[in-house]
Amino acid sequence: MTAPQPTKDDRFTFGLWTVGWQARDPFGDATRPALDPVESVHRLAELGAHGVTFHDDDLIPFGSDDDQRTKHVERFKAALEETGLVVPMATTNLFTHPVFKEGALTANDRGVRRYALRKVMRNMDLAAELGARTYVLWGGREGAEVDSAKDLRAALDRYREGIDTLARYSEDRGYGLRFALEPKPNEPRGDIFLPTIGHALAFIATLEHADLVGLNPEVGHEQMAGLNFTHGIAQALWQGKLFHIDLNGQHGIKYDQDLVFGHGDLLSAFATVDLLEHGGPGGGPAYDGPRHFDYKPLRTEDADGVWASAAANMRTYLLLKERAAAFRADPEVQEALAAAQVPELAQPTLADGETHADLLADPSAFEEFDAEAAGARPGGQVRLSQLAVEHLLGAR
Amino acid sequence: MTAPQPTKDDRFTFGLWTVGWQARDPFGDATRPALDPVESVHRLAELGAHGVTFHDDDLIPFGSDDDQRTKHVERFKAALEETGLVVPMATTNLFTHPVFKEGALTANDRGVRRYALRKVMRNMDLAAELGARTYVLWGGREGAEVDSAKDLRAALDRYREGIDTLARYSEDRGYGLRFALEPKPNEPRGDIFLPTIGHALAFIATLEHADLVGLNPEVGHEQMAGLNFTHGIAQALWQGKLFHIDLNGQHGIKYDQDLVFGHGDLLSAFATVDLLEHGGPGGGPAYDGPRHFDYKPLRTEDADGVWASAAANMRTYLLLKERAAAFRADPEVQEALAAAQVPELAQPTLADGETHADLLADPSAFEEFDAEAAGARPGGQVRLSQLAVEHLLGAR
Amino acid sequence: MTAPQPTKDDRFTFGLWTVGWQARDPFGDATRPALDPVESVHRLAELGAHGVTFHDDDLIPFGSDDDQRTKHVERFKAALEETGLVVPMATTNLFTHPVFKEGALTANDRGVRRYALRKVMRNMDLAAELGARTYVLWGGREGAEVDSAKDLRAALDRYREGIDTLARYSEDRGYGLRFALEPKPNEPRGDIFLPTIGHALAFIATLEHADLVGLNPEVGHEQMAGLNFTHGIAQALWQGKLFHIDLNGQHGIKYDQDLVFGHGDLLSAFATVDLLEHGGPGGGPAYDGPRHFDYKPLRTEDADGVWASAAANMRTYLLLKERAAAFRADPEVQEALAAAQVPELAQPTLADGETHADLLADPSAFEEFDAEAAGARPGGQVRLSQLAVEHLLGAR
Amino acid sequence: MTAPQPTKDDRFTFGLWTVGWQARDPFGDATRPALDPVESVHRLAELGAHGVTFHDDDLIPFGSDDDQRTKHVERFKAALEETGLVVPMATTNLFTHPVFKEGALTANDRGVRRYALRKVMRNMDLAAELGARTYVLWGGREGAEVDSAKDLRAALDRYREGIDTLARYSEDRGYGLRFALEPKPNEPRGDIFLPTIGHALAFIATLEHADLVGLNPEVGHEQMAGLNFTHGIAQALWQGKLFHIDLNGQHGIKYDQDLVFGHGDLLSAFATVDLLEHGGPGGGPAYDGPRHFDYKPLRTEDADGVWASAAANMRTYLLLKERAAAFRADPEVQEALAAAQVPELAQPTLADGETHADLLADPSAFEEFDAEAAGARPGGQVRLSQLAVEHLLGAR
Repeated sequence: MTAPQPTKDDRFTFGLWTVGWQARDPFGDATRPALDPVESVHRLAELGAHGVTFHDDDLIPFGSDDDQRTKHVERFKAALEETGLVVPMATTNLFTHPVFKEGALTANDRGVRRYALRKVMRNMDLAAELGARTYVLWGGREGAEVDSAKDLRAALDRYREGIDTLARYSEDRGYGLRFALEPKPNEPRGDIFLPTIGHALAFIATLEHADLVGLNPEVGHEQMAGLNFTHGIAQALWQGKLFHIDLNGQHGIKYDQDLVFGHGDLLSAFATVDLLEHGGPGGGPAYDGPRHFDYKPLRTEDADGVWASAAANMRTYLLLKERAAAFRADPEVQEALAAAQVPELAQPTLADGETHADLLADPSAFEEFDAEAAGARPGGQVRLSQLAVEHLLGAR
Repeated sequence: MTAPQPTKDDRFTFGLWTVGWQARDPFGDATRPALDPVESVHRLAELGAHGVTFHDDDLIPFGSDDDQRTKHVERFKAALEETGLVVPMATTNLFTHPVFKEGALTANDRGVRRYALRKVMRNMDLAAELGARTYVLWGGREGAEVDSAKDLRAALDRYREGIDTLARYSEDRGYGLRFALEPKPNEPRGDIFLPTIGHALAFIATLEHADLVGLNPEVGHEQMAGLNFTHGIAQALWQGKLFHIDLNGQHGIKYDQDLVFGHGDLLSAFATVDLLEHGGPGGGPAYDGPRHFDYKPLRTEDADGVWASAAANMRTYLLLKERAAAFRADPEVQEALAAAQVPELAQPTLADGETHADLLADPSAFEEFDAEAAGARPGGQVRLSQLAVEHLLGAR
Repeated sequence: MTAPQPTKDDRFTFGLWTVGWQARDPFGDATRPALDPVESVHRLAELGAHGVTFHDDDLIPFGSDDDQRTKHVERFKAALEETGLVVPMATTNLFTHPVFKEGALTANDRGVRRYALRKVMRNMDLAAELGARTYVLWGGREGAEVDSAKDLRAALDRYREGIDTLARYSEDRGYGLRFALEPKPNEPRGDIFLPTIGHALAFIATLEHADLVGLNPEVGHEQMAGLNFTHGIAQALWQGKLFHIDLNGQHGIKYDQDLVFGHGDLLSAFATVDLLEHGGPGGGPAYDGPRHFDYKPLRTEDADGVWASAAANMRTYLLLKERAAAFRADPEVQEALAAAQVPELAQPTLADGETHADLLADPSAFEEFDAEAAGARPGGQVRLSQLAVEHLLGAR
Repeated sequence: MTAPQPTKDDRFTFGLWTVGWQARDPFGDATRPALDPVESVHRLAELGAHGVTFHDDDLIPFGSDDDQRTKHVERFKAALEETGLVVPMATTNLFTHPVFKEGALTANDRGVRRYALRKVMRNMDLAAELGARTYVLWGGREGAEVDSAKDLRAALDRYREGIDTLARYSEDRGYGLRFALEPKPNEPRGDIFLPTIGHALAFIATLEHADLVGLNPEVGHEQMAGLNFTHGIAQALWQGKLFHIDLNGQHGIKYDQDLVFGHGDLLSAFATVDLLEHGGPGGGPAYDGPRHFDYKPLRTEDADGVWASAAANMRTYLLLKERAAAFRADPEVQEALAAAQVPELAQPTLADGETHADLLADPSAFEEFDAEAAGARPGGQVRLSQLAVEHLLGAR
């Protein structure tokens, strides 16, 4: 059996900072030399990727002057042209430099907040120029370690003000960007604002241009809070807000591991691919954006390992996609879903036109309902779980 | 030094199921006899509580006939009258009986969903009769262990349908209830829908009567996901949705402990009381609802321990309130807040009337901004943290 | 492709309490009727199991008199004889009854400790009579929620005294039992003593009959502390103490889920089976005891689901065993292991006879060692990880 | 009320790497300049510290030649002499340089293992010269992310070989060092070997010079696995292995925070100080080594914040010590301990000379024991918990 080969049609994308990570960690120095973004573009293209994404500072080192900036951008554009790779998304580095140590859009220091806005705006100009459709905002430094050192509600005011300003800028300039917030519960701050898919979704509803703002959820970030990633993106999809996605792997609640997709909770990765590709029992594709890998090649690896890990993300995704398709196509699975009454959940609880008064008047709903019998009915959930495991293992 | 004594003005309330918990756990049988709700009302009144809350089945055992039901309600009302205790909140037990084993408002089985709605409506009638203003919905069984056994988006459709129906019922009947969703990440289900404050807040925005629906966050539930409870309720307050609150204690990410308030993460409890009472650095009370304790007396305790634990919740809250007031009143704290630029976060990032174009045109914001100097400025956050610890310890 | 069928040679065993769990959880009543142990024996035999295990109270309800006791035991023995099932392990219920609410072997109350010892001794008599070789001790109630309510070192003294007494009893009676401690970090107590494989291993070294005492690690219990289960049992094997094993599934750090084996962290389950069957890169079987499943059929399931879940444990184990064998047999895996220098770890760091003085005198070890070159060597770990994933998925 | 001032008699010590941390984190560059160890010695002395500790590379930058080395050491010695500070402990940096990316004493690469041993030996020479009594071994890189990339049992063989070699070296040279292993569950490796106090304690029992090897447990490291730190060090004390201690703060299961002591789980810090100072209900000091702070000043802080944070560790410890003394001296606490039967746990379960046969023959132990009555006895644990909270808050 051969693992499937990725092509551009699979729409796999990678951040420049993923393969380019030099493997500096909180206790160790870099183990790999810097990688030229142009080389990354070429290597990713050879491996079958569809596009690349970047933070401003990934492409143009912090502090570059205008000439250097132009040169970096031109080389990058040339590489994109040669390879046919696209840039569907871009984002801003608001976390590496000490100026952001206490926050960026929510820093106590107003000067830092203004500087952060300008840094984002400058990179939005470039994102638009490169044809990006999505602009990601990860607020890694927006948070606190000390509860009393932040006016929490003022922080949310400023967060909203910042995003409203950026959305207006995009609209006024005609950039047509959609913004995708990327939640994370902690690290590098003790507690990060908008820590989960839910908090970010809730916040978006308060924005001036709420329609332009959605989410970029990351597998590992939700799992760092012990949350079910597939449940999370299902709610985001349900609220029309899954604008982008960051795929990677994580082994439970600990520091942010950024493993290869599938190299953490594999069963959950299977459910995620199933949802992304088939949209749940009702069927139909569910997410049509890029499949973006935001991972870090292990610090143990050299350059060969970097490219092997990039390939591994795509192969694993494609294998899970095959397994999910077989799972959905299996008549036994369909029968098991029906036995577990899964399709019945799509049926409204009230009949068409039924009111609460009608429900109250229906004795079969309550007075005559046999709760004991209903409590004793077969579950059939373990059977579905085992069918999923066996399909995942390629054993059916 | 004497610990302060609670009075009705403190608005402390308790669920009947808290002091009444018989201490049956997943590995053990009950260690305490059933408690008569009438006794609970009297004892709580003596201890200084303001009110009691209940699930339908706490007051009227599941399966009671109409006569029994009336009798239970009448005795309870009489106790309320004698003691002056109020019932500010009520809720429904949609989790104990096997009929809800696979869910209630989101059960795959439509009959179960209809039955669940009726059970809620029946108790809303009683809640309204008893003068409750808030109706809590904890969907403890709304969730899954097996990803493929739930159509996740259909589940959210049904959840919305259910709550829309209940809100309409309250409005049409003139009950004037406000609904408060209580999020929890897991237990008793492997993954519960709307697992955090954020997810529930986001969901509320999709409801027909979104204005009638808010949150009832519980300390331990957010901490079971490793989230900062104070941050969570700050966002709920900011979105106008902190309708009710469940205070208790939890020692980090593990099973739901329901400890006495403050007997888990004490430093976080201090920040929570500070926020509830003072609303952040800007000042002013922030939450004006009941201080509701949703905890479980340890399984080791007998009846005396039950009442000691009820008193402990209130005493700890009042002590933390004293400490928080002293913290806010301390000129050194005010000075330290200013040094850490905390008040500056309340200042908008853009000047009054300033546009993104103005910001772009301001060289002091970017071109001339000294990022290195800003990155080197004093933090002052450790100082605030230590001031909080010392005030908490009563050492200042 | 057909999933393999279990036979007695696979040595699969189940606790009576697993299939017999009535699905009472902290928030819900039982959803299944009690199961007759005799029926369990027959059903498990039909499914291909090798043996059953039990707590005293699983077989003989607490409080039974001698006649009832005899009758229960006789019926059970007859079922074993009819089916050929064996009883390789037994254990004591020291957690359900309120008498153990504050501990059993480490209860503050001396009378409870004496009673607990007697309860264990009585069931050891039966275990020996039924031919059990291993006696498991899970101290689920040995712990605390309140730090000051336990003299921690006295608790360890009493724990040791208890186990020393039981070991002496077994030896003096000629029972020939080996004891296996089962660690768990928490639940039902806030913190349980000897919370991990490591703590229990360390404690064993202090016992009078240390050679008779080993471990019964459980997958989910270690994962509740975020620990790598395979690493844990590797240390237990290395110290000669993997006397028994409890296989099940868990989705990370939360309440004890007791899922079907493999239905939690599947990639880790693969590594566990690989270690149990092949003992690490060096090869050779590593654990020769029963493969014991200690899981709970989901509360949603009826009796059919119970038996389906029992079968699922065994099928998943056998599938993982096949995948692990193929992984080990794959020349590409062997090559990748060599490239990652995995076999080199079996080579001692010092040469045969080399002393620290010799090492000091070897300039190639330090003075001439090229640390930069060594830091830049290929890792090859991602490649191994991907090979494991692809073998697990049946894709190679 | 004034917070107590630390003096040398309090035996507070700090690692050079704590105050000297430049605040480089996984997502951010350094926010503080390098700190001269000589300045650290002087500042810590002024603040009331008793000693300093160091990794080789903290004092002598990696790659220094012999002349530089001598110069660094001489300046440091002079500072110690001027200030009277001592060096009770030293340790080796086996984690920062890329050469250790795949491990040090357990690296797959034998050359790396030999190099690591030599690096340790060299710093042991210096440690002995400076009068250190304890040598800490934190194996931060000893671990794996990929289960199949390590021969787990060979890893433990090599770990043992390494430590045996180092112990022999110390003995043969007459250094008289005691070794203290510092466990950590993860970060920077996905899973670190000897992840908890328990695993390290168990491993020590297999060593050639087991008597020379104990533990250096760190508050946050145990809490990263959700474990009760006080329970952990109580077991270490009980096994005579609490050779050293690392005090700091952590907010539950997440990345390693290294907060100021007490700025994480304050209630647990209180229990820890109580145990260290009073050794449990029986009384008497329990740990007589240095109180060593292994923390990181928040990345937001400048140099002033660094020194404020160093002072905060000591003040908090001293305040907790005062609170613990008052708690133990309070007659109401003594009465509550007795009511909860805490002292009874120190009484052996068997009477003096009583055998298991005697126990079997005692009907009061079992046949006549009233389990129901024992199960209904008062607990008194909530009362103790509240007394601890009120003493901690300075409210009694």
